[in-house]
Amino acid sequence: TPDFDQTEHQHIRYNPLRDMWVLVSAHRMKRPWKGQVEKPSQEYVPRHDLSNPLCPGATRANGMVNPEYDSTFLFDNDFPALQPDAPEPGVSDHSLFQTKAAKGVCKVMCFHPWSDITLPLMQISEIKNVIDKWAELLVDLGATYPWVQIFENKGAMMGCSNPHPHSQVWASNFLPNEPRLADRCQREYYRDKGVPMLLEYAKQEMQRKERVVVENEDWLVVVPYWATWPFQTLLLPRRHVLRLNDLSNEERQSLASIMKRLLTKYDNLFEISFPYSMGWHGAPTGHQLAEDMSHWQLHAHYYPPLLRSSTIRKFMVGYEMLAQEQRDLTPEQAAERLRNLPEEHYKTKAD
Amino acid sequence: TPDFDQTEHQHIRYNPLRDMWVLVSAHRMKRPWKGQVEKPSQEYVPRHDLSNPLCPGATRANGMVNPEYDSTFLFDNDFPALQPDAPEPGVSDHSLFQTKAAKGVCKVMCFHPWSDITLPLMQISEIKNVIDKWAELLVDLGATYPWVQIFENKGAMMGCSNPHPHSQVWASNFLPNEPRLADRCQREYYRDKGVPMLLEYAKQEMQRKERVVVENEDWLVVVPYWATWPFQTLLLPRRHVLRLNDLSNEERQSLASIMKRLLTKYDNLFEISFPYSMGWHGAPTGHQLAEDMSHWQLHAHYYPPLLRSSTIRKFMVGYEMLAQEQRDLTPEQAAERLRNLPEEHYKTKAD
Ligand SMILES: O=P(O)(O)O[C@H]1O[C@H](CO)[C@@H](O)[C@H](O)[C@H]1O
Ligand SMILES: O=P(O)(O)O[C@H]1O[C@H](CO)[C@@H](O)[C@H](O)[C@H]1O
Repeated sequence: TPDFDQTEHQHIRYNPLRDMWVLVSAHRMKRPWKGQVEKPSQEYVPRHDLSNPLCPGATRANGMVNPEYDSTFLFDNDFPALQPDAPEPGVSDHSLFQTKAAKGVCKVMCFHPWSDITLPLMQISEIKNVIDKWAELLVDLGATYPWVQIFENKGAMMGCSNPHPHSQVWASNFLPNEPRLADRCQREYYRDKGVPMLLEYAKQEMQRKERVVVENEDWLVVVPYWATWPFQTLLLPRRHVLRLNDLSNEERQSLASIMKRLLTKYDNLFEISFPYSMGWHGAPTGHQLAEDMSHWQLHAHYYPPLLRSSTIRKFMVGYEMLAQEQRDLTPEQAAERLRNLPEEHYKTKAD
Repeated sequence: TPDFDQTEHQHIRYNPLRDMWVLVSAHRMKRPWKGQVEKPSQEYVPRHDLSNPLCPGATRANGMVNPEYDSTFLFDNDFPALQPDAPEPGVSDHSLFQTKAAKGVCKVMCFHPWSDITLPLMQISEIKNVIDKWAELLVDLGATYPWVQIFENKGAMMGCSNPHPHSQVWASNFLPNEPRLADRCQREYYRDKGVPMLLEYAKQEMQRKERVVVENEDWLVVVPYWATWPFQTLLLPRRHVLRLNDLSNEERQSLASIMKRLLTKYDNLFEISFPYSMGWHGAPTGHQLAEDMSHWQLHAHYYPPLLRSSTIRKFMVGYEMLAQEQRDLTPEQAAERLRNLPEEHYKTKAD
C-alpha cells in the first residue's frame, strides 16, 4: 500500500467543537460536474432605492419610515421568528411530544446607507462601527436573554432576501442546539486539560501555519482542521476573550481590519460578491453572566457554500443529511488558495 | 395573555431521535418573499440518451458500457467518496488534530431503464424490485461494513447531477454522525422505557392522527412532531423491524405501495417532480450484526427543501447553521396539506 496522502486518500477528521466527524475525500474534486449551476449573483443594485425597506428614508412593511441614517441602522425585524410575549404552551403529556415556550426578539442592523456596498468594500472605520454596535446589542439583549445570535446571511444563495448590507440578531430565552453543543465541548475540554480549547487551538495553528488564511497582532483566521464547507473559516482572537463586548478598542480596530482582509480574499476567490452565512459564538449571557465561563473563547464562523466557481456550490444533501458531512478538498488546500489571493479587492484594483 | 395557539405562537419542540430542538414560528409564513427563486425543474428529459452514463447501453466515465438492463442496475460509483483500500493515516500528535482511516464503497443503483420516469410514476411491482435490491445490498455490504447508507438525492435542487432515477449506497468502516446519534438516542430511550422509541412513537401517532399523511396495514408516514424541513416526513413500520432485509415479502409489497402514495402526494403538492433527499436508517451491521440491537427501529427520512411553491425553498442558513433549525409552518399544517392531496398523480390524471 502507498503512503497516506491526505489529498489522495479519504479519511475522517474530528471536530472537537461539535463532537462530530467530517469525511474528507479530496480526490472527488476530479469528478466532472453536470448538476445545478447557480444564477450569477445580481449584477446591478441601485445605491438608493426608496422601494427597498432597508434604505434610508424608505417605508417598511409596518408603515414606519426609516431615518436618513448615515452609518449603521438598527430596527425590529418586521417578521420576527421570536417575539417577547408568546404565551406558554401546555404541559406535554408524553416524552416524545415535548414543547417549550420560546421567547425572544429579532432585530436587523444595516451596515451602511448604501445598498450597493458590502463589508469588504467599506472603510475599516465603518466596519469598526458595525463591531461596536454588535457589542452594544449583545450587552443590551444579553442582560435578559441567555443567547444572542448575531449573524449575517450574504447573497441570494444563502437565503438573503435583500442585497442591502445587513446582519440580524435573534435573542432567545433558550440556549439553541449549536451553542449548547459548543458549550458542552468547550466545558469538557477545559475540565480535562485546564486550558480553553480554542485558545490552545489558535496557538497550535499559529505554529503549524498550513491552515492560516490571515493573521494580525490580535486575530487569526484559519480554515479549521475539521471544516465542512469548502472554504469555511474560523476567526479567533489570540488572547482569551469571552464575549464581543470584552474586546478593547484596539482589538475592535484590528478585528475590522482582519475582517476586511478575509472578506476581500473571499470576493477575490471567484471575483464575485462571495456568499456566506457568518455568525458570532461567545459565552452565553442572561443568568450565565454571573457564572464562570472560562471554558469559552469568542469566535466567528464563516460558512460559504461555493465549491468550484462562482456558480457551482457544494450540496450538503443525501449522505451529508443522513449520515455525515463530506468535503471535496482538504482544509489545507482551501487555506492555501485563500492565503495566496491578493488583499486588494478585485473591484478597486487599478488596471 | 391569549391562549397558546401553535400556529400563531412560536415555540420549540424536542427531537428525541437527535436530542435537539427545533424552533417553530408558523406566523413567519405571513412574510412576503423577495429572495431567491429557483429555476423550474428541467422540463424535458429524453427517455433514452446514450450520452447519459446512467442509461442502458451508455458508456460510463471509466469506459465501461452499461448492459441493456430492463429493471434495476447496480454499478460502482465512478467517483467514489469512499474506497476500500485507503492507507492508514499516521497517529495524531494532538487531541485537537485527530484523523482516522475511512474505508468503504460507493455504489449507484438505477431504478428503471427510462430516464424520464420517477418512483411515483413507476409500477408498484417495479418499486418492490428496488426495495428487494436495497435489502440485498444491505446484506452484501453489511457483512463487512458497520454502516450502509442507502439514499436518494432527487432533483437538481438537491445536488442531484443526473435526472435518471437512481439511488446511492455508501458503506463505511465507521458509524457516521447521524446514525451514531440515532443509535445513542434510541438506546437511551429503550434503556429507560423498555420499548423501542419509534415503535412507541408510531403507536402514539396512529392514535393522535393529526400528523399522519398516509398509512396501510404495515406502514405509517407522518410529518414528525419535530420536523425541521417544511414537508419532511418519517416512514415507519408498524411492527418492530431492525433492518430492511428483515421485511417479509408482503411488507415489501406494502412498502412499495405506501412509497408510491407518499411520493405521488409530494409531486401533487406543487405539481412538479418534488425534490428531496431520502434515506434509510436501520440497526448497524458488520460486527454489530451479532449484538442486541432491540432499541433500533427501521425508518426512512424524507427531507424535501420546498416551502412555498415549486420555486421557493426553505433556506437553512444563518440562524439555522449557527444556532438552531427553524420552521415556518407547523408539522400539523404540513401533514394536513399532504393528507388532503389526491393519490392520483397529476401527470396521469384523466381530465
Ligand atoms: O454523488 P452526486 O449525486 O454526484 O453528488 C451529490 O450527492 C453527494 C452525496 O450526498 C454529495 O456529497 C454531493 O455534494 C452532491 O452533489
Ligand atoms: O430573515 P431572512 O433573511 O428573510 O431569512 C433568511 O434567514 C433566516 C434566518 O437564518 C432563515 O430562517 C430563512 O429561511 C432565510 O431565508
